[in-house]
Amino acid sequence: MEPQGDARRKLKQRLNRIAGQVAGIQRMVDEDRYCVDILTQIAAVRSALDSVGVELLTEHVSSCVIGHGTESEHECAKPMTQEQLVEEVKTVLGRFLK
Amino acid sequence: MEPQGDARRKLKQRLNRIAGQVAGIQRMVDEDRYCVDILTQIAAVRSALDSVGVELLTEHVSSCVIGHGTESEHECAKPMTQEQLVEEVKTVLGRFLK
Amino acid sequence: MEPQGDARRKLKQRLNRIAGQVAGIQRMVDEDRYCVDILTQIAAVRSALDSVGVELLTEHVSSCVIGHGTESEHECAKPMTQEQLVEEVKTVLGRFLK
Amino acid sequence: MEPQGDARRKLKQRLNRIAGQVAGIQRMVDEDRYCVDILTQIAAVRSALDSVGVELLTEHVSSCVIGHGTESEHECAKPMTQEQLVEEVKTVLGRFLK
Repeated sequence: MEPQGDARRKLKQRLNRIAGQVAGIQRMVDEDRYCVDILTQIAAVRSALDSVGVELLTEHVSSCVIGHGTESEHECAKPMTQEQLVEEVKTVLGRFLK
Repeated sequence: MEPQGDARRKLKQRLNRIAGQVAGIQRMVDEDRYCVDILTQIAAVRSALDSVGVELLTEHVSSCVIGHGTESEHECAKPMTQEQLVEEVKTVLGRFLK
Repeated sequence: MEPQGDARRKLKQRLNRIAGQVAGIQRMVDEDRYCVDILTQIAAVRSALDSVGVELLTEHVSSCVIGHGTESEHECAKPMTQEQLVEEVKTVLGRFLK
Repeated sequence: MEPQGDARRKLKQRLNRIAGQVAGIQRMVDEDRYCVDILTQIAAVRSALDSVGVELLTEHVSSCVIGHGTESEHECAKPMTQEQLVEEVKTVLGRFLK
């Protein structure tokens, strides 16, 4: 199994878990659970999303931005220069850190 | 309809939307969509969760912490002093801002 | 020493430390230090600011919002209703979580 | 003036501004200013630090990680492989998003 596929499989697992956590929060609201317990779960999902973001962004830099113009670049191929790719990374980072 | 019920209904709507966004991200991964587009969606869900967190925390302060010991306090009632409730708010805030 | 004064003294200490950390980052840039080391320091200052924010917001809720209309409310007194104070907390929270 | 020097000059300016903002917050505390106004300033410094972080991280990726092994890599040169550099980016990103 090549890394790409492995990374993708892990990403799917993480997103499944996040979807499950969100469903759990919905149940907590339905059951009128204590607000602070709900907030704790919301903070947990937020952290999980951040981890996925860090993972995905690093993979993107590794395989698409650095690997630009090489065979290793897979579906990321877009008609962009490496400079444009770096600029795009900056934009997406700014969406997390603002 | 009293505010409590209204706030809860809005909270459910927001969580439904968030669950839908997470499902959308799962589809994007399945369809091998461009990483940066996925990251943009992840950042959007994160912002949506933050908004829900701010809303819920403010309601909690309003109805449970301030309203402590009054009739207005609903399911939030716990055998805690107002001081303990404030301490709890600090803890949960720290889970978002760390 | 009453809590108010004590909290204020601790807040000043924390801000002094943060000012020192920022000066340290400026020196690192002057000395052409490794970017990742600088980034690590920036993340540390950010965390320190978040802690101060959590502390200050909790104190504000405790002494100004809850204590509204009581003797315990000190300089926070503003011609606002408690509801307006809660709304203001929501706004400022939204500046941290956005 | 080459980009490197220009980027560094802008970074210094931003850090000067941040140091000034922190000094301003210290003054606000000395003058017993309203907590919410202080919090608003803290949130502003936090955003400014995030912007600097995004800028610096992007430059690092551009000149050190991508430029690894080329002439363009300046003081960033460290006895690391490109893979290790990517791993390091992930670690530092995780310090901002956690």
